[in-house]
Amino acid sequence: MSIKPTLSRGLRDLLPEQMIARQRLIDTVRGVYENYGFSPLGTPAIEYLDVLSGSAGQEAQQSIFRVSNPEDEALGLRFDLTVPLSRVVSQYPNIPLPFRRYQVAQVWRADKPDPGRFRQFTQFDLDAVGAPCGRADVEILAAICDSLTAIEAGPFLVRFSSRKVLNLLLKRAGIAEHLAGDVFRVLDKIGKIGIGKVKLELSAGYTDASGDPIRGVGLAEEQVSIIEEFLAIKNKSRGDVLQRLASFLAGIDGSSEELAVMEDISGNLDALGYHSDQVNIDVSIARGLAYYTGPVFEAVLLDAPQFGSVFGGGRYDGLVARFGGPEIPATGASMGVDRLLAALEHIGKAGQVKTAAEVLVTVMDPGLSRECMLVAFDLRRAGIRTEVDVSGGRLGKQLKRADKLGIPYAILLGSSEAERGVLTVKQMAVAREHGAGIEENAAWKSARFGQQEVPRAEIVDVLRQLLGRGS
Amino acid sequence: MSIKPTLSRGLRDLLPEQMIARQRLIDTVRGVYENYGFSPLGTPAIEYLDVLSGSAGQEAQQSIFRVSNPEDEALGLRFDLTVPLSRVVSQYPNIPLPFRRYQVAQVWRADKPDPGRFRQFTQFDLDAVGAPCGRADVEILAAICDSLTAIEAGPFLVRFSSRKVLNLLLKRAGIAEHLAGDVFRVLDKIGKIGIGKVKLELSAGYTDASGDPIRGVGLAEEQVSIIEEFLAIKNKSRGDVLQRLASFLAGIDGSSEELAVMEDISGNLDALGYHSDQVNIDVSIARGLAYYTGPVFEAVLLDAPQFGSVFGGGRYDGLVARFGGPEIPATGASMGVDRLLAALEHIGKAGQVKTAAEVLVTVMDPGLSRECMLVAFDLRRAGIRTEVDVSGGRLGKQLKRADKLGIPYAILLGSSEAERGVLTVKQMAVAREHGAGIEENAAWKSARFGQQEVPRAEIVDVLRQLLGRGS
Repeated sequence: MSIKPTLSRGLRDLLPEQMIARQRLIDTVRGVYENYGFSPLGTPAIEYLDVLSGSAGQEAQQSIFRVSNPEDEALGLRFDLTVPLSRVVSQYPNIPLPFRRYQVAQVWRADKPDPGRFRQFTQFDLDAVGAPCGRADVEILAAICDSLTAIEAGPFLVRFSSRKVLNLLLKRAGIAEHLAGDVFRVLDKIGKIGIGKVKLELSAGYTDASGDPIRGVGLAEEQVSIIEEFLAIKNKSRGDVLQRLASFLAGIDGSSEELAVMEDISGNLDALGYHSDQVNIDVSIARGLAYYTGPVFEAVLLDAPQFGSVFGGGRYDGLVARFGGPEIPATGASMGVDRLLAALEHIGKAGQVKTAAEVLVTVMDPGLSRECMLVAFDLRRAGIRTEVDVSGGRLGKQLKRADKLGIPYAILLGSSEAERGVLTVKQMAVAREHGAGIEENAAWKSARFGQQEVPRAEIVDVLRQLLGRGS
Repeated sequence: MSIKPTLSRGLRDLLPEQMIARQRLIDTVRGVYENYGFSPLGTPAIEYLDVLSGSAGQEAQQSIFRVSNPEDEALGLRFDLTVPLSRVVSQYPNIPLPFRRYQVAQVWRADKPDPGRFRQFTQFDLDAVGAPCGRADVEILAAICDSLTAIEAGPFLVRFSSRKVLNLLLKRAGIAEHLAGDVFRVLDKIGKIGIGKVKLELSAGYTDASGDPIRGVGLAEEQVSIIEEFLAIKNKSRGDVLQRLASFLAGIDGSSEELAVMEDISGNLDALGYHSDQVNIDVSIARGLAYYTGPVFEAVLLDAPQFGSVFGGGRYDGLVARFGGPEIPATGASMGVDRLLAALEHIGKAGQVKTAAEVLVTVMDPGLSRECMLVAFDLRRAGIRTEVDVSGGRLGKQLKRADKLGIPYAILLGSSEAERGVLTVKQMAVAREHGAGIEENAAWKSARFGQQEVPRAEIVDVLRQLLGRGS
C-alpha cells in the first residue's frame, strides 16, 4: 500500500533554494548578535501546557498545538521563544544575570493558514534578562539596525515608543486602567485598518466589509479625540516628536520621568550614530502582546512595507515573575525570519542560489570513474565546493541537471582527454553571475556553454581563478 | 498563581556553554558537506502519521509523539530525517536527481528516557537520492572521515559492511529469507551483548540478568556455527577481510558480484587516501533499521568507544518507492549530534566556552554610561565581540559575572580615567586560555586580575592585539 507524500495544511518544506538564502540570513544575524556579546540558547520544542498557556494571551492559547507523551501529560509545542526564555531564567537560578541570549528556532501556531502564513515558522530572538530600562533597550534597537544593514535589506525604519507613554495617554484621556489592553490592541491595528476604523473601534464599533460586527471599546467622543490628537504627533525627527509629546503630556503625573527615559534612549542612539532616519519614535506603536511594560519596537523594510514588521519586541519586566520568582526586568526583540525572507524575495534581495556546488565533475566513462573522483577530491581539498556525478546516467542528463541547479562549471573527462592528460572545463549558462575573472576571458563568452581544455595538473588553479578565489 | 518552571521528562535545555560547542560542531560539519556539494533541506517537525508510521519499524511507531491540530488529523513529530527526505523526493518530482542534501534538525522519540538519552535530539543527515551503489557510498564514507577530522575528534574508525553480504551469509547458512530481519537485529547487538549472547539469541534464546526471557530466532546449531565463522572474519586490512570473505562465500550464487562492489568501494577509498586505519570492513555491522539494502556504515571515536556509533547509515534503495513512485536508489548517513557532543565532552574536546563575549565594558558611573557605550560600539565595529553592562549593578558584581562567564577582558571607566583620557583594561582569570600575545606581556601575568591603563584612542588596537587578531 502506498502512502500519499504530502504535508498537513499550513506546513511547508524548504527546498535548497529557500534554505540557502535562509541560512545565509541566519548566519549573518548570528554574527551581529555575537558581536554584541549575546550567546545562543536551545530549548526543546515541547513544553508543559501550563508553562505555555499561563504566559500566553487568550488568542495564543487557542493556537497551541497539543502533544501527547506516553505519560499522558498536558504538553504543547512552543508558540514563541520568550516564554521558554522566561522559564529557563526561573528554572536555573545560577545563570548569571544579565542573561544575554539569542535563540533561532521553530515555533508553532495552529492558526487558520493564509497564503504566506504558516503553522510552523522561524523566530530569531535577542533578549537581555536582568536589564533595567536604558542601555539594554538602546542595544536591542542598535542590533536591529545592524542586522538589517548586515543582511543588505535596503532602506529600513526602526520605530519605537513605550507602553509607559501610552499609559500616560490613558491618564491624560481619563481612560480606566482595565481598558488599557483593549485600547492597545486596537491601536496596534492602525497600520492595517487606518485611523478611521481605529476611532470607530475605540468608540461604538462598526460593521466590517464582510458584514461582521466589530465590537467597540466604548470610549467617549472626547477620549477618542484625545487619542487622535496623540496619534497625530509625528515627525521625521525624534527630537521634535519628544518635544511635542512633552507639551501634549504636560502636567500629567510621571510624564517628565517617562520622557526623560525616551530622551536618554534617543540621545544614546544619536551618540552611537543611529539617527532619526534609521530609528524614529512612533507613538502609535503599541505591539499586541499583553506582557510589554516599557519601550516597544518594530522595524519595516521601506522597499517592502506591505510585509509589515520584520522585527518586533519590547520590554517585559513582569514575565519572568509569573514563574514565582522575583520580578526580573527584561527586554528583547524577535526577527520574523519567514516574513523577512518573503520581503527580501519580493524585492529581489533574497538570493537565488539553488545548490552549494560550484563544480560538477561529470562521469561519462565508467573506466575513468576513479580518476573523476580524484579530480573532485583535489578540488574539494582546495576549498572548491564540488560534486562528482553519482547518478551513473548519461552525460547529457548530468549537464542538464547542472544547468538547472545553476552549478557554474562542469568538468568532463573522456578517453581522449585522459590520453592527453587534460580535462575539459565547461562554463554553464549561469556562470556569468558567479565569481570574478570570467568577463576578462573572451573565450568563455563565445557560447552558452563555453569550454576549454585545461591540463590535469592545473585544474585546481584554473577553477580557483574562475571562481574568483585568487591564485 | 505561579507556574512551575520545569520540563517534561526526557527533554532538556541547552545553555550557552552547551550551545556554543554544538554550533561550532554543526558549522564545521556543514562546511564539509557543502564542500562535497550537498545542499540544505528544511522540512516541518510535524508530518502525517501515516507518512511516519508507514515507513517506520514497529519500535519506531510506538515512540512517535502524537500531535493534534484544529482539523483533528492524525499527525506526529518526525522521529528521523530519512522518512521526510523520502517524502520530499516523492512529493516534488521536479527536484533534479541525484538530490544531494543535508539536513540538521531536531527529531523526537517518546522512548523511556535514560541518562544521556533524550526524547528530543539532533540529527545531522547527509544523503544522495538517485544514486546507485558505488561512488555515492564512497563519498558518504569519505565525508564521515572528513567531518570527524574537521571537528578534531581524535582518532576514529569508520566501519562498513553490506546487507547484501549478509544476505549471502544467510544463503551460505541455509537460513530462510523471512528470518533475515530477526537475524540482522540480533547481529546489530553484538557490540553491546557480545558473541556468546548473540549465539544464544540466534538459537534457542536465554534468560537475561534481570530474569526476563529473551526469545531466540530458532536457528540450528550448524547455522549458528556458520554465522560465528563469518563473524570471525576480521583484520586490520580491508584487502585481507575481502580475501577471507571471498573464500568464505566461494561458490554462493551472486557472491563474486557483491564482493566486486565491496572491492570497488575499498579501491576508491584507497585511491582517495582513506586507508584501512580510517575505514575498515567489519562484517558484523548490520544496522538495526529494516530499510537498508546495500552498504551500511557506522563510526566510533577510538578515545570514547563506550559512546557507541556517532555516525550510522547505509543504502536504502526501496524507501522512496513506499510513496508509490518508482524505486529510487539512495544512500546516506546520520550524525548523532548529541551522542557525538557527549563523547567529545567526555574526552575533553567539546570546548568550554560559556559566552560569545570577549570583552565586557563595565559601567560604574552612570554619568559615564554613554561614553561606556561608545567604547563598546567602537570595539564591536572592529569585530571584537563586546558586551556593555546593562545590569546597572555594582562594579564588583559586574566583574564577578564576567569572571564566572569566562569573558577574557573587562574595561573600566571611572571619573579618574575619564579625566586622563584613559581606560583600565582588566585581564580576567581565564584570559590566559584565549588568544595570543598574552604570554609575552609579563605585566599581565603578575596577578589573577592583571590590569593596565590604555589611552582611549588606542583601546581597539590594544584589544585586537591581546585577542590575537593582529594589528
